[in-house]
Amino acid sequence: MAQENRKGLTIVFTGNGKGKTTAALGTIFRAWGRGFRICVFQFLKAETGSWGEVKAAKRLGIEWYKTGDGFTWTTKNMDESKEKTLHGWELAKQKIVSGDYDLILLDEFTYPLAFGWIDTQETITWLETHKPVDLHLIITGRDAPQALLDYADLVTKMEEIKHPFYQGIKAQPGIEF
Amino acid sequence: MAQENRKGLTIVFTGNGKGKTTAALGTIFRAWGRGFRICVFQFLKAETGSWGEVKAAKRLGIEWYKTGDGFTWTTKNMDESKEKTLHGWELAKQKIVSGDYDLILLDEFTYPLAFGWIDTQETITWLETHKPVDLHLIITGRDAPQALLDYADLVTKMEEIKHPFYQGIKAQPGIEF
Repeated sequence: MAQENRKGLTIVFTGNGKGKTTAALGTIFRAWGRGFRICVFQFLKAETGSWGEVKAAKRLGIEWYKTGDGFTWTTKNMDESKEKTLHGWELAKQKIVSGDYDLILLDEFTYPLAFGWIDTQETITWLETHKPVDLHLIITGRDAPQALLDYADLVTKMEEIKHPFYQGIKAQPGIEF
Repeated sequence: MAQENRKGLTIVFTGNGKGKTTAALGTIFRAWGRGFRICVFQFLKAETGSWGEVKAAKRLGIEWYKTGDGFTWTTKNMDESKEKTLHGWELAKQKIVSGDYDLILLDEFTYPLAFGWIDTQETITWLETHKPVDLHLIITGRDAPQALLDYADLVTKMEEIKHPFYQGIKAQPGIEF
């Protein structure tokens, strides 16, 4: 899907509301419709936390890497989580520089930045010097560092107004995950 | 994809930021991965305004209706736009009551409500009495009426922080539409 004069956008979906990963998936859906070559990295999400989208991606032939191990605040082995994340980022960097993709999603990538596992300024400098000019890059997650927002072309903050969990309704498969 | 004890959520994506339709598409992507039966109504969007997602939906076999005519504030024939919209809503109601779907998206449906073309309170009363209990319903668009937010189970407001249009970057096919 090479195209003249295309400007690869860096897009950030952040905030505390629902819909960050979902908006990224919607962008993938749209891009897939146009024949884009797509690659997804899910950084911290547990296997069970993204069942619907992983199934869909498999059915669509989209490359999909789960580089995290379902890290949560109760995770015991933080070093292992960090190591997996750093390994995932190295793999993602290879894919970014490869020129083989039109769109790459780094899902929940703000967390390793926010935790300090990956240095934000180094990452931005690396992207400035290595990201192909026509590659679209999407980064999702809460607590996106300000420097990343400054670097991005498009930033949307999802604000939670009302959530069914607080009304005692269980998470619905196919909708929430 | 019938499932015991499923609670059909009514979800609203609103606000002035990017990502409302996109978040809805992401939810569809996820739901499609689980084999949900899906139907989409796009109320006011122009044919050219949703090319990527319409292509994707066709490739995935998702039912997709464009009931609007690309209404904008410069539209000359408002009556025709209104008539098409009302016709679209009648069709959507048939699909909602049919029980043939797990997920129905009413994209940009807040506008006919906000314009007063369709009465918000009547719509809510109709949904309360006709929507199958296990049907998920997604409504997108700016200016969602408060009564709709009160009725919904999940509301997310997309807040625009930074948008490339304001930086002189053109809308990117496959990403923005």
